[in-house]
Amino acid sequence: MNPRESLPETPPIPDVQSTVDHRNLSIDDVGIRSIRYPMRVLDRDGEPAATVAVCNMYVELPEHVKGTHMSRFIELLQIWKEPVSVVSLEGLVRDMCERLLSHSGRIEFAFPFFRNKAAPVSGVESLLDYEVVLMGELRQGVFTRTLKVVVPVTSLCPCSKRISAYGAHNQRSHVTVTVQAAQAVWIDELIDIVEGQASAELFGILKRADEKFVTERAYDNPKFVEDTVRDVSALLEADARVSRYVVEAENFESIHNHSAYAVIKGPKHR
Amino acid sequence: MNPRESLPETPPIPDVQSTVDHRNLSIDDVGIRSIRYPMRVLDRDGEPAATVAVCNMYVELPEHVKGTHMSRFIELLQIWKEPVSVVSLEGLVRDMCERLLSHSGRIEFAFPFFRNKAAPVSGVESLLDYEVVLMGELRQGVFTRTLKVVVPVTSLCPCSKRISAYGAHNQRSHVTVTVQAAQAVWIDELIDIVEGQASAELFGILKRADEKFVTERAYDNPKFVEDTVRDVSALLEADARVSRYVVEAENFESIHNHSAYAVIKGPKHR
Amino acid sequence: MNPRESLPETPPIPDVQSTVDHRNLSIDDVGIRSIRYPMRVLDRDGEPAATVAVCNMYVELPEHVKGTHMSRFIELLQIWKEPVSVVSLEGLVRDMCERLLSHSGRIEFAFPFFRNKAAPVSGVESLLDYEVVLMGELRQGVFTRTLKVVVPVTSLCPCSKRISAYGAHNQRSHVTVTVQAAQAVWIDELIDIVEGQASAELFGILKRADEKFVTERAYDNPKFVEDTVRDVSALLEADARVSRYVVEAENFESIHNHSAYAVIKGPKHR
Amino acid sequence: MNPRESLPETPPIPDVQSTVDHRNLSIDDVGIRSIRYPMRVLDRDGEPAATVAVCNMYVELPEHVKGTHMSRFIELLQIWKEPVSVVSLEGLVRDMCERLLSHSGRIEFAFPFFRNKAAPVSGVESLLDYEVVLMGELRQGVFTRTLKVVVPVTSLCPCSKRISAYGAHNQRSHVTVTVQAAQAVWIDELIDIVEGQASAELFGILKRADEKFVTERAYDNPKFVEDTVRDVSALLEADARVSRYVVEAENFESIHNHSAYAVIKGPKHR
Repeated sequence: MNPRESLPETPPIPDVQSTVDHRNLSIDDVGIRSIRYPMRVLDRDGEPAATVAVCNMYVELPEHVKGTHMSRFIELLQIWKEPVSVVSLEGLVRDMCERLLSHSGRIEFAFPFFRNKAAPVSGVESLLDYEVVLMGELRQGVFTRTLKVVVPVTSLCPCSKRISAYGAHNQRSHVTVTVQAAQAVWIDELIDIVEGQASAELFGILKRADEKFVTERAYDNPKFVEDTVRDVSALLEADARVSRYVVEAENFESIHNHSAYAVIKGPKHR
Repeated sequence: MNPRESLPETPPIPDVQSTVDHRNLSIDDVGIRSIRYPMRVLDRDGEPAATVAVCNMYVELPEHVKGTHMSRFIELLQIWKEPVSVVSLEGLVRDMCERLLSHSGRIEFAFPFFRNKAAPVSGVESLLDYEVVLMGELRQGVFTRTLKVVVPVTSLCPCSKRISAYGAHNQRSHVTVTVQAAQAVWIDELIDIVEGQASAELFGILKRADEKFVTERAYDNPKFVEDTVRDVSALLEADARVSRYVVEAENFESIHNHSAYAVIKGPKHR
Repeated sequence: MNPRESLPETPPIPDVQSTVDHRNLSIDDVGIRSIRYPMRVLDRDGEPAATVAVCNMYVELPEHVKGTHMSRFIELLQIWKEPVSVVSLEGLVRDMCERLLSHSGRIEFAFPFFRNKAAPVSGVESLLDYEVVLMGELRQGVFTRTLKVVVPVTSLCPCSKRISAYGAHNQRSHVTVTVQAAQAVWIDELIDIVEGQASAELFGILKRADEKFVTERAYDNPKFVEDTVRDVSALLEADARVSRYVVEAENFESIHNHSAYAVIKGPKHR
Repeated sequence: MNPRESLPETPPIPDVQSTVDHRNLSIDDVGIRSIRYPMRVLDRDGEPAATVAVCNMYVELPEHVKGTHMSRFIELLQIWKEPVSVVSLEGLVRDMCERLLSHSGRIEFAFPFFRNKAAPVSGVESLLDYEVVLMGELRQGVFTRTLKVVVPVTSLCPCSKRISAYGAHNQRSHVTVTVQAAQAVWIDELIDIVEGQASAELFGILKRADEKFVTERAYDNPKFVEDTVRDVSALLEADARVSRYVVEAENFESIHNHSAYAVIKGPKHR
């Protein structure tokens, strides 16, 4: 089916968007932004899970065309019934570019992703939510996938621990990992990497034995934002699939009303 | 099953929360706030739809108890597998109060709700999202359900139309309806009421024939925020099921960088 | 000066808002919302400080009038040059009601408020920001002032401290106090009350000696959300000026990805 | 004064941050984020205006250093008393890098900026607020200043106007211009450029004669997001001071619940 004919227009209505433009300026990205749609997302094991995504969908517009056809982006959301993943995204981006008659385009899906976690001592299960952005971009025939995951963790301050007679300030932190990879890197993998390097990981339900465990675990494992971004980056430096990465840590300091923040952009040693 | 024993605690760990409090102040609401959980929500036709809710769950705490048991709230989210609706919410609130050993409690679920809409001329289908808050409260044995729906619409200014030689400023508006009702009032019903009274309703996909339709429809049907809240309120005044209502309209003015806003709290004539 | 004539209108332009309405529904509040304006706010010592407020300004509209005159609200913001305070707000609300020809109205100003604080050991000074909402309402001739202050603090968990061999989870918390008072209660007073009851207070700058101090102070002074709201409420119960209060505590838990929350609405013992 | 000695530390407290790091990873940016501070900002005419900024301040950290000294960033905010501008920012960034003993660093100040505007017919004056981000970055001795301004405007749809018998949908839009320039480009200049190219500009106060004017002006001047970004970019292409620019337009569509969006990154023809 020709996508241009996918939906009938009453013939005599003028098509302003298709007229010729003379300003001699191509548009890098044009499309729709901040549309919410229910979606299914695949985890590493191929299991689909229902979520709600905020979607941005853009194509490049050549110099000589006045406007794009905005309704076709949403037609694609409406028609697409497969679960979204770091793998299937490429087909969706290519389909969008064909429907919009463009050589380049970009899709960004931001959504909460849930994992079932067992508490460290009691084994009690609960879900934890992670904010994920899945991006796919086609430029000059080359497809790039980018995955961004915000992993909430506990951070405990090494300085506070070292200088205080007892206790140490700690707080919730966001460790955000953004990777570009030719081969698929799964959401779950990035979460595992971050949770393994944090002072402690978070859980929805903690019974008292679990709370004792995570309290002591964080105290045994203090990290500055500098430590967190270095320890996570070291693992990404060693991952051959990762062609580019950004690791950020933001501590919502419990002793201040502002954040401590650090970022490493890599790889630095390849 | 006794909810107190639902999950084992290693015996010798002290239970600080259960100690006696001497400050002589009961706590109106205590619990968990801003936890995200995937959920299924029922529409008017009994069809469940997947969404993601932000949940607040609270109980009343008597004067003599030091603290509540926070993990039990999430155990309930974890165990509860039924779709949520204005009907099923009551059972969930009563279950929560039993598990937390309280006579009073409140649950609030905020989530996007999607409706499939057909464009007015072409009939092309797309989803539209509405922000919904479903609240259930038990106080002294009496259960109150409250439903709040934010309906995005087009508003077109009567003054601008009347005084201008051509055109009229219009903009996206949020009409928010909050109702308390002894009998169930469905999310879909409130959306229908608001969309019927707006200058025009919104759609995800509009083909050109549809865009012409909604443009002319809005111009034929100008409304101030004052008009919108009065017209929606008039329908709620006439609905015998509704015991209390609040109708708000906020126009994100296209000619200003602030909103016009109006609210009616009723009923006024019963 | 007659406020109706404050600004000239070209005579022949129709005044749609002033036409008669027949729907028999008065409007509780109508006006402008979410407008930002620079302002000066008075602290307890009468010192004015520059800030930026987000303003809501509403009046009641009687049944028989179609619409209010939105531009007059902003004319008032434009003309008003005095610093805003819990005292001066009453004059502003009364002026607004006169200009809009209404017996009832409400103004809400939300703004960041800054205090210069000295670190507890080094004495180094820095600013801390607090989110404040100042509300004034006139209904049937009676003026009510409401002051809401969000005080960010450290909270340290008594359960985590008690059950763990070392350490204790702690986090940033928001303690929100809302008071109605016939006599003026100052922003600074509410901040002092909350900071005195928290596990520890926050500072912009902490040198190492200060960081040691606040870490140990928090560990010595653990509080659940339940403790925080009770301890703050006890002081408000004893303050004869306060006719109504709401005390909320929200802990952005460092071991979870959700908040613990408690609220007391009082007074309970007067 | 040596900034390392700017504030005394009690001698025996260990300085964990200054220890040696062996992970062999430099940190691109480390510092504080999301701290609010009152500030004065200069407009084009050299007039300072009070505002409140959200500040991010970072420096580069070499491989061999464990951590930065977070308190020194805020000491700088506390000491700095000059108004901030696209000119004075360079001194502040250089001062920060010296205090933190780093060769590279970045400051970002985000704040509302107010302009007094006269309504187009009545001449009535009111303020309009614009969101501004002022960024200064020092890397390897080279200083780069970046200015970002979000200008809220009216956009009116050319397609809707062309195909409809009467009316045309319009809405509030955000046109965001980000420029890098060796010579100073003032906030006011970017606002003027955007407001001159929009379907219509916004005002705080519009009397009826003004509302007629802006309604008709927008109808006479329809623009897609594609048109807006092209027309603004054409002016920036012609400005020799601008070395890099990004122009974005986001229409908060009045007929949809999502945005139309376009971006041009340039210059394209130099």
